[in-house]
Amino acid sequence: MGKNELKISQRGIAMPLSPIRKLAPLAYAAEERGVKIYKLNIGQPDLPTPQKALDVLKHVDRTTLEYSPSQGYRSLREALVGYYDRYQIKLTADEIIITSGGSEAVLFAFLSCLNPGDEIIVPEPAYANYMSFAVSAGAVIRTVVTTIEEGFCLPKVEKFEELINERTKAILICNPNNPTGYLYTQKEMNRIRDLVKKYNLYLFSDEVYREFIYTGSPYISAMHLEGIEQNTVLIDSVSKRYSECGIRIGALITKNRQIRETVMKFCQARLSPPLIGQLIAEASIEGTEAYSREVYDEYVERRKSLIDGVNKIEGCYTPMPMGAFYTVAQLPVEDAEDFCSWCLTDFCWKDEKTPEGKAGETLMMAPAAGFYSTPGMGRNQVRLAYVLNKNDIRRALFLLEKALEKYKQKAA
Amino acid sequence: MGKNELKISQRGIAMPLSPIRKLAPLAYAAEERGVKIYKLNIGQPDLPTPQKALDVLKHVDRTTLEYSPSQGYRSLREALVGYYDRYQIKLTADEIIITSGGSEAVLFAFLSCLNPGDEIIVPEPAYANYMSFAVSAGAVIRTVVTTIEEGFCLPKVEKFEELINERTKAILICNPNNPTGYLYTQKEMNRIRDLVKKYNLYLFSDEVYREFIYTGSPYISAMHLEGIEQNTVLIDSVSKRYSECGIRIGALITKNRQIRETVMKFCQARLSPPLIGQLIAEASIEGTEAYSREVYDEYVERRKSLIDGVNKIEGCYTPMPMGAFYTVAQLPVEDAEDFCSWCLTDFCWKDEKTPEGKAGETLMMAPAAGFYSTPGMGRNQVRLAYVLNKNDIRRALFLLEKALEKYKQKAA
Repeated sequence: MGKNELKISQRGIAMPLSPIRKLAPLAYAAEERGVKIYKLNIGQPDLPTPQKALDVLKHVDRTTLEYSPSQGYRSLREALVGYYDRYQIKLTADEIIITSGGSEAVLFAFLSCLNPGDEIIVPEPAYANYMSFAVSAGAVIRTVVTTIEEGFCLPKVEKFEELINERTKAILICNPNNPTGYLYTQKEMNRIRDLVKKYNLYLFSDEVYREFIYTGSPYISAMHLEGIEQNTVLIDSVSKRYSECGIRIGALITKNRQIRETVMKFCQARLSPPLIGQLIAEASIEGTEAYSREVYDEYVERRKSLIDGVNKIEGCYTPMPMGAFYTVAQLPVEDAEDFCSWCLTDFCWKDEKTPEGKAGETLMMAPAAGFYSTPGMGRNQVRLAYVLNKNDIRRALFLLEKALEKYKQKAA
Repeated sequence: MGKNELKISQRGIAMPLSPIRKLAPLAYAAEERGVKIYKLNIGQPDLPTPQKALDVLKHVDRTTLEYSPSQGYRSLREALVGYYDRYQIKLTADEIIITSGGSEAVLFAFLSCLNPGDEIIVPEPAYANYMSFAVSAGAVIRTVVTTIEEGFCLPKVEKFEELINERTKAILICNPNNPTGYLYTQKEMNRIRDLVKKYNLYLFSDEVYREFIYTGSPYISAMHLEGIEQNTVLIDSVSKRYSECGIRIGALITKNRQIRETVMKFCQARLSPPLIGQLIAEASIEGTEAYSREVYDEYVERRKSLIDGVNKIEGCYTPMPMGAFYTVAQLPVEDAEDFCSWCLTDFCWKDEKTPEGKAGETLMMAPAAGFYSTPGMGRNQVRLAYVLNKNDIRRALFLLEKALEKYKQKAA
């Protein structure tokens, strides 16, 4: 045996850089220069966590911060049973497995249901980390393209069927959608159900934004679809709905006992989900209706500010998102990634509104190409999150307009 | 395209059940019957978390529990730099990546460094979840056997070389060892270093029990070994040393920039490690010397109680572990798994010492076969953790003796 070359793994090379976080070093450098950055790139709500949940921290009466059960505390799972019941999703506590964020739920679903080489069909643009979890599990994401012109609605069944082959094992949806804000209609969900049934596929449904639906349209969960109960895995997280992304509490939910038993082996290997996070999550579920209404109302207004504002800028367009707190917008640039980088490295606006002591202001957006797998798609698009207050959204839009002007002048 | 059969994944089937947690349903049933169980099966310290760390919970002044950086807070990583310095491990904060427990560090190390089919050599018996993480990553664990007769010392270099082939990419050690309590000597560590250098392998070194070394022998970290700095990945966790297993804070540490950049992609995909856990971990690192000394002294006495006690029981034998808080013991039974199950299902001792209101008492142990890959190895062995107070350890040993007598009678 000769000497090995010390190499990192193929999947390590294949792992995409997060399109949401990849510009972070440029932002960090700008901040070091004293630039104030309006961050529209990341789905980190600025809203407070419910006080009731924060208060839990003051009343943890444990002396040992011990492992929790691998599937999470029963009391949290029982609270979630009540929560889902409000959405006409009927569950038992045993059908719910607590995970370290929705992220771990996606990874464990893939690891448990898919073999290396198995294919998952995902409407794109899609949450970029699905790709990362697929690479981690050796699975392959195949995408059906949704377009900004059609408001990112679900493609025709034929588009799915074109991709289906003997390696196709699953469909993955995010509803309401990150990054587009699209909400699937009953008709579209029925089409997905029929496909899942016809080809006996797994349906992974990420519904972490169910709280945020702004159109009065009904929320149709994958768990509402009849006849595919054994195929369906619900991915969930408390991160967004209670502004507690940092506690890392999510859930994997399925009526399929065999999947649960398999997922539990992965859960046991990593021992347990975060203890304190579970206490906070449990406290967030009950008695926070007023909080949820306030948060909802706030997002309704922010959405209006952002969408109206974007559409008023020359050459910009975004459809009105029905849910979540993102939108995908088209900009009058050829390469949005270059533009987003340039905003952080070169653009720096200063006027009388610039906060004192700051060298200037700019904005940060997530280039949308990273949310597509199809090469060339989304090159002139960005994902914008409306997780800033209305004043900041207005200022960010002003900066966007000015940046586009300067960027155009530079090119000319 | 015809109809698929809905199957779980091959790796889901291959995932082992945790030998530490697999008897949990039997224990649960026994507890339902009112039986008190002395749990020697799990490495969950009963000792309190440092008060200083618990106090952090009362003073979290954040209003939003937001994502932390994917690599963890800089302040925690800087505190760890100081911690490792006490052990002559010289690091910068950038060389430390915070993970969700040591578990995630092992998984990310495998995912980043190994391709499916790549082999890792591990001395066995070994922490069972290494196997689970290898299965998750499609890697293959090959084991060199260490024996109870030789006190679980490192096998000869030839034993490693017999296994080395073109798929061999890494050696994994746990030092001090879970489950055996063995501590590698300088000579043994040098042998590992030479092997790693000769074949240019990765060295994954899990050193989460470094605080617990009872023999005055020097602690030789993989990070102390010269000439293999680019090959070495240190796996760590604050769980055991501060009795805070539930906060899920670990670390992956390496001088190899390429590994770190790859690991960071997996970190970004799962967004961030637990926020509150990081605050607790940081507070645990400084100013807890007195706590650590007390904990250490307590384990010294527990170790003595357990080891002396086991060796006094007829037909039982365990070597004196040098570190961690486990030992592997040989019992006078043919099939320790059957015996451990029987203790939970059939054995129930009652005398004047049995706590009032209890139907009886028994003990729970982890069958050691699950810590070996070689079929048949460890069949008459159990892993015992000394994480109970001395009275409980004494009572557990009394119950072990009585259970062995009854079990023998039953067989006769």
